[in-house]
Amino acid sequence: MNKVKPLILITNDDGVSAPGLRALISVMAEIGEVVVVAPDQPQSGMGHAITTNNTLYLNKISKENDSILEYSCSGTPVDCVKLAVNEILKKKPDLCVSGVNHGSNSSINVIYSGTMSAAVEAGIEGIPAIGFSLLDYDWNADFETMKPFIRKITLEVLKNSLPKDIVLNVNFPKLKKDDIKGIKICRQAKALWVEKFYKRQTPQGRDYYWLAGEFVNQDKGEDTDEWALANGYISVVPVQFDLTAHHATQQLNCWNWNE
Amino acid sequence: MNKVKPLILITNDDGVSAPGLRALISVMAEIGEVVVVAPDQPQSGMGHAITTNNTLYLNKISKENDSILEYSCSGTPVDCVKLAVNEILKKKPDLCVSGVNHGSNSSINVIYSGTMSAAVEAGIEGIPAIGFSLLDYDWNADFETMKPFIRKITLEVLKNSLPKDIVLNVNFPKLKKDDIKGIKICRQAKALWVEKFYKRQTPQGRDYYWLAGEFVNQDKGEDTDEWALANGYISVVPVQFDLTAHHATQQLNCWNWNE
Repeated sequence: MNKVKPLILITNDDGVSAPGLRALISVMAEIGEVVVVAPDQPQSGMGHAITTNNTLYLNKISKENDSILEYSCSGTPVDCVKLAVNEILKKKPDLCVSGVNHGSNSSINVIYSGTMSAAVEAGIEGIPAIGFSLLDYDWNADFETMKPFIRKITLEVLKNSLPKDIVLNVNFPKLKKDDIKGIKICRQAKALWVEKFYKRQTPQGRDYYWLAGEFVNQDKGEDTDEWALANGYISVVPVQFDLTAHHATQQLNCWNWNE
Repeated sequence: MNKVKPLILITNDDGVSAPGLRALISVMAEIGEVVVVAPDQPQSGMGHAITTNNTLYLNKISKENDSILEYSCSGTPVDCVKLAVNEILKKKPDLCVSGVNHGSNSSINVIYSGTMSAAVEAGIEGIPAIGFSLLDYDWNADFETMKPFIRKITLEVLKNSLPKDIVLNVNFPKLKKDDIKGIKICRQAKALWVEKFYKRQTPQGRDYYWLAGEFVNQDKGEDTDEWALANGYISVVPVQFDLTAHHATQQLNCWNWNE
């Protein structure tokens, strides 16, 4: 008896033509039935943005006999997941994978990342989800090295089932295969971007700003994703979408809120 | 000796002309020195989006002798906070308040909310922060009732100092003053939006989609923000930006990642 292949939804934030997405598709096509719904243009840094005040377009890219159904979408990565689940897929996918992102989504980057927000959206909708990112912003980065690890991580998730209301944030160091020490479960390092704005003038003389910044890791913990990546490991952080700081409740209950 | 007034940064996601923002400014002007940097157009549902691939403009709205320094910004709520801190304010603000949002940011809405993402961004940058929202989407909603409560919550935060790496998500029920039972510390209710897309056609015959949806609360807990709001309380949820699901680490460490 043939086992039914898992239905896998793939998205990203670098857009439908990104090499990282193509790498992810090639791995997933060997594991399951694949449907791709990805932004029609780069959506990096879009966080968990959704499009509520504007129209959304879907454009079917794949041809009639292609084995992989593929769409581009005019919206954000989160819009892609919502449209895929509600308008394209006939049943709930068994897995949603997002990426491979061109650049890091470790530490605090998880909160700005369109790639990870797509995975989180899938998680909210009860779909097991993984975001993959490579610490290399180059459009022509080496995604080949990652492929066996992506396959392994995906098969582990399909076999074991993720804990409830958890998605995985997977980051790969920019290393050759032999230099990768393995896969490590981590926590999100405490870090932030110290911004620098480039102040310039338009040809018409109006000031404008361009956001740049420097990533500052404030966390020396050896259980963090930053430590793992700096020491040759692939980092896997379980990410939740209950943002409640449960540990702070008791302290806040001691304040005089109602006097 | 005069006590130095706290420096308070105000932003929102409904845009600089929103009545909710004006209400918040009027309360804060009695407490501290106020600087406003708010989006020049509505930015609801923008989540933690930042503008990295485009220019940002600041437009000074206040006049030379106005007591409140006020700017509109072409970017997202998170951009507003980053620009305010790095380009406008001469020192780190003592508090950042965001809102008052026209509509709920309770439960899972916190993750889509531009209002709350601005507060979270301030928190990441080490600035105590509070997001305020009213369960009324009406542009002309009644913000007067909230004012004494906003003042009370703000003064408590300034007096007690927030726990580390925590911001507050405050939601107000749409009730008259006498019907409000008080302020309640809560956890984020488990809920999601079950989407409905309106599929329509452009005048040229191309399909497009418009996102709508129904909020579904899956959580009957009496310690949740949804319960509090439905029962006449103002809900206060401590929100964290370490998204690590620490409770899931042990389980994930039992998987065969490196075999």
